[in-house]
Amino acid sequence: MKRNVLLKIAFDGTDFGGFQVQKNAPSVQKTVQRAVEAVTGEQVTLTGCSRTDAGVHAEEYFCLTRFICRIPLDRLPEALCTRLPPSVSVKCAYEVPEDFHPRYSAVSKTYRYTIRNARTADPFKNRYEELFQAPLNETKMNMAAKYFIGTHDFKGFMSSGSSVQDTVRTIFQCEVKREGEIVMIEITGDGFLYNMVRIIAGTLAEVGTGKRKAEEIPGLIASGLRKNAGKTMPAKGLALIHVSYGEGSQL
Amino acid sequence: MKRNVLLKIAFDGTDFGGFQVQKNAPSVQKTVQRAVEAVTGEQVTLTGCSRTDAGVHAEEYFCLTRFICRIPLDRLPEALCTRLPPSVSVKCAYEVPEDFHPRYSAVSKTYRYTIRNARTADPFKNRYEELFQAPLNETKMNMAAKYFIGTHDFKGFMSSGSSVQDTVRTIFQCEVKREGEIVMIEITGDGFLYNMVRIIAGTLAEVGTGKRKAEEIPGLIASGLRKNAGKTMPAKGLALIHVSYGEGSQL
Repeated sequence: MKRNVLLKIAFDGTDFGGFQVQKNAPSVQKTVQRAVEAVTGEQVTLTGCSRTDAGVHAEEYFCLTRFICRIPLDRLPEALCTRLPPSVSVKCAYEVPEDFHPRYSAVSKTYRYTIRNARTADPFKNRYEELFQAPLNETKMNMAAKYFIGTHDFKGFMSSGSSVQDTVRTIFQCEVKREGEIVMIEITGDGFLYNMVRIIAGTLAEVGTGKRKAEEIPGLIASGLRKNAGKTMPAKGLALIHVSYGEGSQL
Repeated sequence: MKRNVLLKIAFDGTDFGGFQVQKNAPSVQKTVQRAVEAVTGEQVTLTGCSRTDAGVHAEEYFCLTRFICRIPLDRLPEALCTRLPPSVSVKCAYEVPEDFHPRYSAVSKTYRYTIRNARTADPFKNRYEELFQAPLNETKMNMAAKYFIGTHDFKGFMSSGSSVQDTVRTIFQCEVKREGEIVMIEITGDGFLYNMVRIIAGTLAEVGTGKRKAEEIPGLIASGLRKNAGKTMPAKGLALIHVSYGEGSQL
């Protein structure tokens, strides 16, 4: 009888071509899959909670696997970590019901985009922060952020190359905070289109420099045109920080 | 007339063979020197405040260079950063008197050794923390740390391969703190022998696991024998965090 095992992992996406198996670049999926196979001695598959792009990080990411091996759940994270590169860590393992799906059972996901608003980068954080030298007004950015909250057609905030048909998404929370030189954009939604958070971040940065006004956001969304929104910010500033499976969930 | 310019820099030591020019590995010295040459258009030399080993980091490091170029000091950090890899950053530039020496003018240096005392590593901090899985008692480690304070012959806390004759050093402060899973050792002294902080960290870790008693430290120091002290902890957990040039200094 196979066990349905959900792994809570974290990864530094710098050296990966994303979560999913890719040609020409190592994937988090394959890396974790091989570790599970080494520990269990079984051939396994791995299903992720989200397609994260190349270079994007995850402080919290869930993936599901199935195996027969009777290894206790509390021993699994350490056993897997000994088989993983330092860029990937397994934090916790759970046994979940047959009908649990890491992607479709998720109620919301929270991403954080981190900008260092300074003249020079921090060598210790450079893999996780995007340097932005022009001064940013975070109060105006936060005002603009509020316009993204709600259910909207985010077609204009999606990069080309996506085959998604339904471009309506619901944003539950969107907030901009400053801590010293760091400006953080945190956004929670039921799902995100291809590059959506990075385009929202680029648009908010333009509000922060004064190039756009906060009040322009509803019009940008309504237009549905990618060219009206801001630039796609680089992947390295982006991290998936939380996935919610609903109030009753123990995850 | 050449200007005497002191640079305050920070670097991630992971990919360097140390500060000083080495065969077979890139050095911070050469990297910064090339950036200064590119910005000033002059051939320069660079003198550091400390020999940091391969893989050791610096949150604050000072190096001195001389050039004629009239670039304003406040524009220099950014100009240099555009010529540097993201692993090195110039934070500030100062003009200093002729007799200033980044190494000999320093009154004290402070190093931090960072241990993650947990079952698994953090992928985002892994370059700067050493994973230590056995539980550590930081209270006992801190008691042991106090025995290092004062002027002692630290011959037994030096790796072989050093040609230093005078092995007496003064430690002004030595402290162990825990913040959650992180155990930090901070040590301030007038100078440190080859691998001295890493050997002290290894010795304190043995006190933390209960393998040694805090009260054994004075005997270990007095013996002057390397074999009596603990293991040399890996380079990646070590960072130079502060260099003091005395109370009146503006650095």
